[in-house]
Amino acid sequence: MTADQLRFSGQRFTVEYHLQGSAADARRRADLLCIDQTVEAADHVIPPGPIRNELLGRVEQFEGLDDEVHAASLTFPIELLDGTMSTLLHMSFGMASLQGGVRLVNLILPDVALTRMAGPRLGIAGLRAQLEVPARPLVCAVLKPLGLSPDALATLAYEFALGGVDLIKDDQSLGDHPFCPFEERVSRCAEAITSASKETGRTCLYAPHVFGPWPKLLERATLAKSAGAGALLICPGLTGYDAVATLSRLSAPCLPLILHPDFLGSHYVSPDSGIAPAVLFGLLPRFAGADVSIYPTYGLTYPITHTDCRGIAQACRTRLGMLSSTFPTAAGRMNASRIDEMMALYGSDVVFILGSDIRREPTQIRDACRTFRRLIETAHP
Amino acid sequence: MTADQLRFSGQRFTVEYHLQGSAADARRRADLLCIDQTVEAADHVIPPGPIRNELLGRVEQFEGLDDEVHAASLTFPIELLDGTMSTLLHMSFGMASLQGGVRLVNLILPDVALTRMAGPRLGIAGLRAQLEVPARPLVCAVLKPLGLSPDALATLAYEFALGGVDLIKDDQSLGDHPFCPFEERVSRCAEAITSASKETGRTCLYAPHVFGPWPKLLERATLAKSAGAGALLICPGLTGYDAVATLSRLSAPCLPLILHPDFLGSHYVSPDSGIAPAVLFGLLPRFAGADVSIYPTYGLTYPITHTDCRGIAQACRTRLGMLSSTFPTAAGRMNASRIDEMMALYGSDVVFILGSDIRREPTQIRDACRTFRRLIETAHP
Repeated sequence: MTADQLRFSGQRFTVEYHLQGSAADARRRADLLCIDQTVEAADHVIPPGPIRNELLGRVEQFEGLDDEVHAASLTFPIELLDGTMSTLLHMSFGMASLQGGVRLVNLILPDVALTRMAGPRLGIAGLRAQLEVPARPLVCAVLKPLGLSPDALATLAYEFALGGVDLIKDDQSLGDHPFCPFEERVSRCAEAITSASKETGRTCLYAPHVFGPWPKLLERATLAKSAGAGALLICPGLTGYDAVATLSRLSAPCLPLILHPDFLGSHYVSPDSGIAPAVLFGLLPRFAGADVSIYPTYGLTYPITHTDCRGIAQACRTRLGMLSSTFPTAAGRMNASRIDEMMALYGSDVVFILGSDIRREPTQIRDACRTFRRLIETAHP
Repeated sequence: MTADQLRFSGQRFTVEYHLQGSAADARRRADLLCIDQTVEAADHVIPPGPIRNELLGRVEQFEGLDDEVHAASLTFPIELLDGTMSTLLHMSFGMASLQGGVRLVNLILPDVALTRMAGPRLGIAGLRAQLEVPARPLVCAVLKPLGLSPDALATLAYEFALGGVDLIKDDQSLGDHPFCPFEERVSRCAEAITSASKETGRTCLYAPHVFGPWPKLLERATLAKSAGAGALLICPGLTGYDAVATLSRLSAPCLPLILHPDFLGSHYVSPDSGIAPAVLFGLLPRFAGADVSIYPTYGLTYPITHTDCRGIAQACRTRLGMLSSTFPTAAGRMNASRIDEMMALYGSDVVFILGSDIRREPTQIRDACRTFRRLIETAHP
């Protein structure tokens, strides 16, 4: 095949960057990204014809946001995507990430490319249907701290479930430690939650943390499902995003996925580089298959703003082809005092992740959960 | 099991951070990392006994580098590691990454923990033995640009191999595209290189790019080996580091691994946060199993310095228990004019990744490679 036998459909996807530097410098760098993100080669290595005319990126829009920050909108042929997260990440930020002063701020895929992404298995509507909670925010409790035995965690899970929370997730620190083996912990906690659910008559889904290299990750997910887990917690920063997409696509173990931002911080903490929160905690989890996306909440010590969180929620829930939507979360030392503020920001389609405050009185965890849920129900517009 | 039945050996691993802020603020944040990197819970949730006394991180050293940057050395029990990369990344920078103003600058594992890491399959000595190149720097050519057909890439590979390079790697952009399917490309290029090797009498290893979700990644690696590949190129930023470790550990396809920094940039570009280059491009690839680690070279447009590159080389090659060493690389528009400078920095244990310059005269690629290799041989101290 010679280069001119290459055929492109003409359909392109869009990647938006913010570039640091003067207009001339930023424009030069945008032009260079068209090459670096595709062929990454000097001009004399790029043959004439379709590689040069169609395969390379194109700067479609370029404008100054201020003297030293410029927005560039680039497009690339959809033939360079393959429906995997890794190829999408490579095409949008693979080499661009290495430059510094380049921030990935948006990804716009045409429907034909969106359709190939894994997407959430259940999404907001599906998870609500499974939980039989049609309208109010969901409440999620967390099993911690690391160091407790399976029995101690199961006792805690039982209290949370009796308190009427919708979801109970492992802390991301829970693994397969000698003092708390994965299989024993997951079985005990799942049993405890099932038992409490029978008492309350409410569905409560348990999301154990699955982790580690493939195929161990899949074994753990399968084991979790067999033991009675109703969801899975996974950290794409550690496993890679395609592990999430694969779990979302598999016909078994077929559980909704809660994504945790562990090890993803480098991408968002510097405002001049990396990946904007709406992409990192909204679009990417959603493309990969997050039913729930956890991320740092504004107003604490994390370098994330109210506007960032609004952008994440928008990316989680806006129409994107046939992709189901993802629950954004109110996480990080979350307690009753922030309910109104969070619902003003997010509305009802949000998951509250309960912080340590719910355990202020160790003998009254169940009541504290009930109180929190009542507040959520009352606050519901 | 109650909390006081927890047992720790007392052996701990060390994680070093640079923290932005005044001495008081940085110290407070170091203390908080002891909690966030382990139990991530409020004080009233942490039981007395071994969780509090042994499981939590400890600030072992703390000192000011200047008024606004402080170095903190923390230790954690080795029982919190499990030999996987994902657990190591979680324990060293999982939650810390989300804070901003925290930079991971070193990881010191005791031998018992090092022994559990995958490590390079061949390392510098093993790769030299396989190539029968005992002392000089290695030379690696790159198949590009994306858009060429398998035949065109094979023709290029043939020229490189006749030119006597030691390694020929796919560009990280080469995937499984309709215009250049993975299987056809890898077979054609491997055949061409084998054929040229017979003519030259020299070993030349071909490293196709393997990518995508597990188990597809493993299928591609296995197929590559069957087709005659002698190494593999892999991007841990896309696949996750544990995919690298698994490939390094497997008894088949058992090929040396070349790691590419695609999508890893966010971790290093901001000097105040993320991960120092010596860790990101030195220690982590080496722990995971890189025989060769590729990273951006100083003196171009990347935010990386001569000192950073020296640190990477040190991390690649210093004694670390029984772990084999990793080849650092001189990459990024590399040409003859930088040989002396690179060898002054790296010595002979380095791989030169040839840039587009080697193809300045399309009909004389073979000669250009021969000339470059002669220069490397002459420059050899």
